[in-house]
Amino acid sequence: MKLTYDKSMITEEYHAKAVEAFKALHNGTGEGNDFLGWLDVSISNEEIAKIKKAATKIRNSSDVLIVIGIGGSYLGARAAIEALSHHFFPKNVIFAGNNLSSDYMNDLLDFIKDKDVSLNVISKSGTTTEPAIAFNILKKWMDEKYGESAKERIYITTDKEKGILKEQADREGYETFVVPDDIGGRYSVLTAVGLLPIAAAGINIDKILEGARKAKVAFAELENNACLEYATLRNILYGQGKKIELLVNYEPKMHYFTEWWKQLFGESEGKEGKGIFPAGVDNTTDLHSMGQYIQEGERHLFETVIHIENPYRDIEIHCDEKKLQFLDGKTLNEVNRMAMQGTAIAHTNGKVPNLMVTIEKLDEESIGELIYFFEKSCGISGYMLGVNPFNQPGVEAYKKEMFRLLGKGE
Amino acid sequence: MKLTYDKSMITEEYHAKAVEAFKALHNGTGEGNDFLGWLDVSISNEEIAKIKKAATKIRNSSDVLIVIGIGGSYLGARAAIEALSHHFFPKNVIFAGNNLSSDYMNDLLDFIKDKDVSLNVISKSGTTTEPAIAFNILKKWMDEKYGESAKERIYITTDKEKGILKEQADREGYETFVVPDDIGGRYSVLTAVGLLPIAAAGINIDKILEGARKAKVAFAELENNACLEYATLRNILYGQGKKIELLVNYEPKMHYFTEWWKQLFGESEGKEGKGIFPAGVDNTTDLHSMGQYIQEGERHLFETVIHIENPYRDIEIHCDEKKLQFLDGKTLNEVNRMAMQGTAIAHTNGKVPNLMVTIEKLDEESIGELIYFFEKSCGISGYMLGVNPFNQPGVEAYKKEMFRLLGKGE
Repeated sequence: MKLTYDKSMITEEYHAKAVEAFKALHNGTGEGNDFLGWLDVSISNEEIAKIKKAATKIRNSSDVLIVIGIGGSYLGARAAIEALSHHFFPKNVIFAGNNLSSDYMNDLLDFIKDKDVSLNVISKSGTTTEPAIAFNILKKWMDEKYGESAKERIYITTDKEKGILKEQADREGYETFVVPDDIGGRYSVLTAVGLLPIAAAGINIDKILEGARKAKVAFAELENNACLEYATLRNILYGQGKKIELLVNYEPKMHYFTEWWKQLFGESEGKEGKGIFPAGVDNTTDLHSMGQYIQEGERHLFETVIHIENPYRDIEIHCDEKKLQFLDGKTLNEVNRMAMQGTAIAHTNGKVPNLMVTIEKLDEESIGELIYFFEKSCGISGYMLGVNPFNQPGVEAYKKEMFRLLGKGE
Repeated sequence: MKLTYDKSMITEEYHAKAVEAFKALHNGTGEGNDFLGWLDVSISNEEIAKIKKAATKIRNSSDVLIVIGIGGSYLGARAAIEALSHHFFPKNVIFAGNNLSSDYMNDLLDFIKDKDVSLNVISKSGTTTEPAIAFNILKKWMDEKYGESAKERIYITTDKEKGILKEQADREGYETFVVPDDIGGRYSVLTAVGLLPIAAAGINIDKILEGARKAKVAFAELENNACLEYATLRNILYGQGKKIELLVNYEPKMHYFTEWWKQLFGESEGKEGKGIFPAGVDNTTDLHSMGQYIQEGERHLFETVIHIENPYRDIEIHCDEKKLQFLDGKTLNEVNRMAMQGTAIAHTNGKVPNLMVTIEKLDEESIGELIYFFEKSCGISGYMLGVNPFNQPGVEAYKKEMFRLLGKGE
């Protein structure tokens, strides 16, 4: 993984701020320091073995695993699975409990009608409304279909000792996995929260963890630290009025990685009236929709491009049409790369600063590396901004109003 | 369709501006007035009959229709098809030529291996790089699989008389459909551009057109005109520093409608250093990712919520868990509605103004209505902003750099 940017952008002042933030993160002296468990990628070999065993059991017994979770209990797994799976073949891991649409739920019930199903319910407290309702409905379906043996197909990822999901799991005999106390939802993809669904999708979680642990070593020191640099650049650009950051990809499989990234940065920094608004574009698709705005609209944007150097399979273009002659003999990936480079030039000329994160290939290791890179960058960046990047006080506001409307007591 | 907002927001000054913009649009006296064909929903009965006939032929002869197009030749059809199809059952219309990923193309070739396929290539000029390459590759595949009879499976939507696609269609004997001269890409969903793929997906295009034509009548006069009001509100909020608009849904099927809307407004208004940045959230999913930012981040946002009153199928919640007792006996859609109402209250209290567009049901007619509503609002809104809402000069900038890197001559 390599971060590329215009070195002249970095100022002494912001660099000093970044060093301070970096130290606060490492020394655990900043706000939210009881939520730094992710920094160590500390999942135990025992938990990993347990995850793999459950994943194998799920794959052997089920056509689909329905993962019930929302926010940090949804986006990390989805990001990794989409990034590392075939574009068009049906996936064996699907998601529920991440919305309240009754059409979605009824359509899901149609879909699983004649299928063998396992459930993985992910919720620290067990009381989050969306997953609680989805589990309520799907548990009934499981009980009706499988009777006593339904419990062999239900996996609970929750607090290690308390909460209604933990109680229910103990009572009913469901296998449980742990959401660690010192890791918040949006930083939890490299725990059982993300790794069980990812392993159930047939993806090598050892390699994801290997990538993350390599990143941990690579970004441990202050010198030549891409996390530090990215955090510094974001804050400099924000200070210059660049209030929107677009994460840009040229590989559609990365769409949900961007969604994960939006939660990570938006929820970590969007507080106290501050923070960069995180958005995403999937190119070249969105060059034909958002491209006009990016090129010539309000100049409050910057872009961070994820560049994947090599595809799994390329394809050569043979073209005798005169007007398309310039494409003849090139490969599709070459054209994609030129689109990316050309766009970076055009947008930079249009006063949209461009940063670039390059990975060699979209594989398990690089996904692990990117996850760690962005998490650590986000911790540093939030401290530089002067907020606690590990809380999310504002998420309660709509819930409070919703509960009131639903007539929930205290 | 109903637009709800705080009436006290409207000022005389902006209302007067809106009236002027409305008149310029209706009288064809504004910039870009040679691109107002969409205003009349003027597709002929003959073209509709031809579309339906082709759609039936495609459905009878093919497992999948691959629609090759990008931007306005992609998003409208995708938006309508996703909004009006089952969430989980595989779709018979898939998309290509909207990116340059070689993994995407190779995965697509895997997917269609043993399938019967038709193609619909959509490009006004025929030279847009992404669809030109995709058609080049897929045409070879079709020729190899079907030989002479491949031409019975290829449908071209392009300029009525010129361009390389039109020439190729005439030479090879492909059936053609017309991209009208007076309708730009992002306003073209209610022409053959959008309607052929939508009809091929088994959706009733007469009802979509009926919805649009009702909207045309409903929004023809200056009085009580929701298009005029929405355009006015957007410009007032923009003037107050609300530089990001979030289109909000509570129904995941609406995700691509938001993508269509982003192109419509972003490409129409994002020019001359101006324009609201269009973004979207799919709730309640994104309340658990972007919710924190919206509630407490920078106050440069407003929201336009699409509220769908009735689902196709609701589902009752039965819950004896004490902590979830407040949900017992409610339906999922009731909870979804309370989430929406609670969120609107919480965000408004958090200084994020909320507008609401209500439709009774997510059906063909309401999709037609929404399309027309947003298109007309966009024309008025762009004129109020002082830009030409029907051009997209900035889209060429990246292409120029890309062509240079690819060694394309003049």
